[in-house]
Amino acid sequence: MSLKDFAARHVRLTVEGKTASILLDRPERKNPLTFESYAELVAIFRAAVQDDTVGAFVVSGSGGNFCSGGDVHEIIGPLLDRDTKGLMQFTAMTGELVKAMRACPQPILSAVDGIAAGAGAIIAMASDLRIATPRAKVAFLFNRVGLAGCDMGACAMLPRIIGQGRASELLYTGRSMSAQEGLEWGFFSRTVEPEALMQAAEDLARGITEGPGFANAMTKRMLAMEWAMSIEQAIEAEAVAQALCMTTADFRRAYEAFAAKRRPVFEGN
Amino acid sequence: MSLKDFAARHVRLTVEGKTASILLDRPERKNPLTFESYAELVAIFRAAVQDDTVGAFVVSGSGGNFCSGGDVHEIIGPLLDRDTKGLMQFTAMTGELVKAMRACPQPILSAVDGIAAGAGAIIAMASDLRIATPRAKVAFLFNRVGLAGCDMGACAMLPRIIGQGRASELLYTGRSMSAQEGLEWGFFSRTVEPEALMQAAEDLARGITEGPGFANAMTKRMLAMEWAMSIEQAIEAEAVAQALCMTTADFRRAYEAFAAKRRPVFEGN
Amino acid sequence: MSLKDFAARHVRLTVEGKTASILLDRPERKNPLTFESYAELVAIFRAAVQDDTVGAFVVSGSGGNFCSGGDVHEIIGPLLDRDTKGLMQFTAMTGELVKAMRACPQPILSAVDGIAAGAGAIIAMASDLRIATPRAKVAFLFNRVGLAGCDMGACAMLPRIIGQGRASELLYTGRSMSAQEGLEWGFFSRTVEPEALMQAAEDLARGITEGPGFANAMTKRMLAMEWAMSIEQAIEAEAVAQALCMTTADFRRAYEAFAAKRRPVFEGN
Repeated sequence: MSLKDFAARHVRLTVEGKTASILLDRPERKNPLTFESYAELVAIFRAAVQDDTVGAFVVSGSGGNFCSGGDVHEIIGPLLDRDTKGLMQFTAMTGELVKAMRACPQPILSAVDGIAAGAGAIIAMASDLRIATPRAKVAFLFNRVGLAGCDMGACAMLPRIIGQGRASELLYTGRSMSAQEGLEWGFFSRTVEPEALMQAAEDLARGITEGPGFANAMTKRMLAMEWAMSIEQAIEAEAVAQALCMTTADFRRAYEAFAAKRRPVFEGN
Repeated sequence: MSLKDFAARHVRLTVEGKTASILLDRPERKNPLTFESYAELVAIFRAAVQDDTVGAFVVSGSGGNFCSGGDVHEIIGPLLDRDTKGLMQFTAMTGELVKAMRACPQPILSAVDGIAAGAGAIIAMASDLRIATPRAKVAFLFNRVGLAGCDMGACAMLPRIIGQGRASELLYTGRSMSAQEGLEWGFFSRTVEPEALMQAAEDLARGITEGPGFANAMTKRMLAMEWAMSIEQAIEAEAVAQALCMTTADFRRAYEAFAAKRRPVFEGN
Repeated sequence: MSLKDFAARHVRLTVEGKTASILLDRPERKNPLTFESYAELVAIFRAAVQDDTVGAFVVSGSGGNFCSGGDVHEIIGPLLDRDTKGLMQFTAMTGELVKAMRACPQPILSAVDGIAAGAGAIIAMASDLRIATPRAKVAFLFNRVGLAGCDMGACAMLPRIIGQGRASELLYTGRSMSAQEGLEWGFFSRTVEPEALMQAAEDLARGITEGPGFANAMTKRMLAMEWAMSIEQAIEAEAVAQALCMTTADFRRAYEAFAAKRRPVFEGN
């Protein structure tokens, strides 16, 4: 299925060129997640596995905020009435979102303006790249709602992005990380003013989609696969993966472009 | 057993509110560790597993220094007379301290003023959070005493806190990390002037103890458990852990406080 | 075999004191790698396992650049004519270089001036320590030549040095990391002006070679071994490793020097 044909109802999904954009669009509540939007996001990223016309995702929120996380009334309230099995179904489903984000071959770029809280912070964290505005605030505030910091992979992924000590502080205190901190700590690649955010995100995404798509997907796959490998295993795995990439036409295209002193045009195969 | 009843003789142990404070208190020698204080620290952190009235630890040193590490005369000298089995008993015991620090459910906060050297640097590193004064110096100086940097988990933990390159430099050269470096590299969460250090540490600890204790302990457990898991495994493990936290009364308390527009009062269950 | 007797033909190998220096020396092409120089570098680092008169390596390039990576004409062109088996032989061989760098007991210090691109960036990354000049540029530009970022261990090692987010950005975009970024992100330990680079590298290397050689090698071994261990496993492994180091004469030398208030002279045993 092409993502262009995906009839999203709970988030806005658009495909322009080779970039698919997901807009969280309930600005009056700072774009919270609901059971329905969780399920839809999973479905989109799962569908992306089959759509090789799309080379990157951009995720953003409308109205000056990224995402306020699981809605208090539509998610947290109902969870209080669930039994053990029902709770586990919820946490398995939220975890499924991060798995789907890691499993889709396209790099995902989050463009964070304003609030990214709870599951919103997780969506940013689980993306491949993140840019922000100076007023972005990222809050892994699970302990503020009586829960643990181990939500949707945060105790594994956040320490690898910003360091174990900084991640621990954020997860134990629930305090917000400012855009400046996020930049200095390596959570954000850069910050740009709000009016320039979407253009910067689209430019970065287009740069990636103009690269070798098969190889980009392999980079993403290996960044995930090597997470807990030994160095020797990682080197072995990369030798196989890169040899495979050397059989692609894009590898030849790059060489021929170099020899002809022109810019390569990659086709993703 | 309650930590309040723990009769510490080689370190000073006090419990105020829900915070247990450990003071290394031999200021004339910059608070070195001895065989006895090692054993006592292990016993304290092991006892803490059973004391759910304590929600956080603060570790500090007296007299303007944190800890000078294993005492040259009381530890290093005697080690030279030990046979292989005796040496292994010592390194197993020092490793036991780090294991006990990671296994106790309470987050541990180190407040570092002045020197933190050798095993003193390790105690700071093995804590969950660290704050410091501008004159703090942290020295993983094992190679200066003829030993390897692989002491008490340093080759595993330090790279995850400050990065593999910086950790390598410190461990190969034995040079001190300044407070400023520690702050920029994510070893310290913040620096405060010496006269404000203990208040800052206690405030940070109290903030944590006022949070959801069961969930905080789960955060600590999962930060450790997920150390070498794959991302998929970590997401699965967190789904189970967080579902468990959703069955606690603290999760309901947070929701009810939010609905009533008041601050939640957590009880740790 | 002593490294002094190693007749290198494709790189310049010199041994002065306890430091072995490798100079990549084809400045007119920015010191590219060829099939022959790859093989020779592997042979040098493999030989180093047997030469305990050498305590550290310094790797650098001539003519104001570090290394431009696999030569376009001498490597990339010929690869396009290889079959699957031939490609795999190449990637296995390049991976072998990183394995040899990690397996040799001597810490490796890269001194990076100018361009470090592709496999040149990898050599810097796979070193234990890195210093640079302000004009250094490190480019993991594999996607620019149609390949994946997973080359010679980059998807495993680079994230641990500079963080998962920054590594992802570099590998997905292929852009250069500036010397300033490398310094702030922990890739470089320090930057020095070009005319001072080699002296700084040699001083740092000599500092390491004057340390306890057996223990330094153990530090290197354990930094690699503990890469994907759990914390508990790492602590256990270090207890054994450090107990072994305590049986060396260098441990006694350090104690005796301390007692006599003089600087220890280590002999590496």
